[in-house]
Amino acid sequence: MQNDFELLASDQHSKARRGRLKTAHGVIDTPAFMPVGTQGSVKGASPRELRELNAQIILGNTYHLFVRPGLDVIKHFGGLHNFMSWDGPILTDSGGYQIFSLVKLRKITEEGVEFQNHIDGARAFISPEIAMEIQAALGSDIAMVLDECVPYPCEYDYAAKSAEMTTRWARRCKALASAVSAEKASNAPRTAHSTARQLLFGIVQGGAFENLRKQSAQAITELDFDGYAIGGVSVGEPEAEMTRAVESAEPFLPTHKPRYAMGLGTPPQMLEMIARGMDMFDCVLPTRLARNGTAFTATGTLNLKNAEFTLDKRPIEENCACETCRQFSRGYIRHLLKAEEILGLRLITLHNLHSYLNLMSQARTEIENGTFDQFRKAFVAEYKTRDAIPVE
Amino acid sequence: MQNDFELLASDQHSKARRGRLKTAHGVIDTPAFMPVGTQGSVKGASPRELRELNAQIILGNTYHLFVRPGLDVIKHFGGLHNFMSWDGPILTDSGGYQIFSLVKLRKITEEGVEFQNHIDGARAFISPEIAMEIQAALGSDIAMVLDECVPYPCEYDYAAKSAEMTTRWARRCKALASAVSAEKASNAPRTAHSTARQLLFGIVQGGAFENLRKQSAQAITELDFDGYAIGGVSVGEPEAEMTRAVESAEPFLPTHKPRYAMGLGTPPQMLEMIARGMDMFDCVLPTRLARNGTAFTATGTLNLKNAEFTLDKRPIEENCACETCRQFSRGYIRHLLKAEEILGLRLITLHNLHSYLNLMSQARTEIENGTFDQFRKAFVAEYKTRDAIPVE
Repeated sequence: MQNDFELLASDQHSKARRGRLKTAHGVIDTPAFMPVGTQGSVKGASPRELRELNAQIILGNTYHLFVRPGLDVIKHFGGLHNFMSWDGPILTDSGGYQIFSLVKLRKITEEGVEFQNHIDGARAFISPEIAMEIQAALGSDIAMVLDECVPYPCEYDYAAKSAEMTTRWARRCKALASAVSAEKASNAPRTAHSTARQLLFGIVQGGAFENLRKQSAQAITELDFDGYAIGGVSVGEPEAEMTRAVESAEPFLPTHKPRYAMGLGTPPQMLEMIARGMDMFDCVLPTRLARNGTAFTATGTLNLKNAEFTLDKRPIEENCACETCRQFSRGYIRHLLKAEEILGLRLITLHNLHSYLNLMSQARTEIENGTFDQFRKAFVAEYKTRDAIPVE
Repeated sequence: MQNDFELLASDQHSKARRGRLKTAHGVIDTPAFMPVGTQGSVKGASPRELRELNAQIILGNTYHLFVRPGLDVIKHFGGLHNFMSWDGPILTDSGGYQIFSLVKLRKITEEGVEFQNHIDGARAFISPEIAMEIQAALGSDIAMVLDECVPYPCEYDYAAKSAEMTTRWARRCKALASAVSAEKASNAPRTAHSTARQLLFGIVQGGAFENLRKQSAQAITELDFDGYAIGGVSVGEPEAEMTRAVESAEPFLPTHKPRYAMGLGTPPQMLEMIARGMDMFDCVLPTRLARNGTAFTATGTLNLKNAEFTLDKRPIEENCACETCRQFSRGYIRHLLKAEEILGLRLITLHNLHSYLNLMSQARTEIENGTFDQFRKAFVAEYKTRDAIPVE
């Protein structure tokens, strides 16, 4: 199998890596942040705005799209790219995370998960094979295996059994994807910068237990995926446990494959995870907090609803190159939020996504220049806000 | 006084006119549609999007801005243009319409209106002079006199007395504006394409009564304003009465000044009013209906929430040049609406504003080509939807 991931540089003082991943819809420079397009739209942003922000890849949530508009609709429109008019790379999750966090009624067996969706309560069943078929129909560039994401806290025995089942599910996903891939390989063109193949990432689980994380990483990597995710982090655990979960698994992940820390995180968290060898991130924080009036800056978050900003002529962040900061004042944005004008949350959404994407761009440059570690330390030291980790 | 309005062409078969109005922030080609920026933002659109839509002028609501964020805030930011980052022309209403339609507690005297605002119930008082001072502080390019907008239906006696008071108020507005204008004239630069002066429009009232409309038009035009508005239309009256109110006043308006039919209307209504000599329009329909999932087309409106659009791959309108129609399907927009994604109403807002602005652009071309009347008749005949006229 050709390697779609290329390592361009590695930091001397940390495990930070600068890489490049080829997908069917283009190249992703890592470390990369993936804006979350839950229901076929990154909340508060248009595809054009995402392109202008230089977002190289976005995420789509299989569970949400499966429930609404449903697979038949997306198939009818020729896949998720066509449906939402986004021609860049898309990563889809397997749906597992939402089934385990959002759905109230579900029954897990070795075969898969039966559940009632949170919109109209309709029953559905997802198995590892079905998760692959759904993601094939969505046509994403990167698919994720179906896993069980255990809650925090979680008993050792449950976490152990669950991680073993996740491995068996991963094997089934891989088997089905390989069969489909082999079938398609003959008629799909392949260029220097893209791969016609849907990439498939395995997911390491194991809860907050170091030896389970290690065992899961060893078992999953044996299956030889195109990339590896650390799942079951950013589910409400203390930051130290999240860090330990990643640190426990990371040494067992092959260096020549991309690593994706799922659902992370705040800006300092992402830099810390880059330093621990992670390459890809997705998080609802920049879009979700924007809708709540909260903006990210290099020194922490600002709640722009606060009265202190009423007469503030400054942009959200001095010297920020984003369209919001080039044109609009904190005082105007505060007014929009108080008046419940949609433009308010749009302007903060653009700024926050720029902030996240720009941080990744900076991290890439710093890694190339061999200065990442001091950049990270200075950034983390300057950053004052300690946000709670969001649970979707 | 130099005339800021130039008549470029007149239709042979109707009273339609093609004109050009110079303001401090640029030129407005008439017939013109003015998107409504109630609270310092055109709902669902950004200033950049408005520029890309070729909106030449937008409207700001004095009442709303007076209540929130308040005049001190907008003064602090150097006026409404700076505050909202819109460098094109702005017309502000006087606040009268909202005081008479939105506010529950108010007391009208010859001196002015005392009211409790609809946000926090705080008391305030607006007189003709204060309305002028507020609009001077907002820094709009076109200000409107304070008028009393009587409801529909309305007794003859009340409408008559009210129209007379509106004339006396207009005289007071004009007196104050002339004094301010004379003071400013010496130090303001004047270029070929702009006027540093804030233009002031008078407003014709008179309810649904032909002779009152005529008397009001005669009295208001005697005061010599920069333009004339027909107020008290589109307040819930049948379309025929609205037409008669305009037709009753129009013959008494000078041809060399712009005429503004306030709060209008649907696409056919605007064309009918252009045929009756009106030049400027403002209406919340394109933005308000968009938020409700309704899109305008040349043959009527579509409610994109309807299930019939689930699998519809067509754009909102075939051959429409707007950004929405060039990229997105009805089916995707329907999904966004059902999923309550903000992008859905944004995409319809852009389309609807394009639709309105493009209709005006077409009307201007047809007038220039001497084909307006047949264009209007064909458009009105094709247009199937009869929307209720919105009351703000």
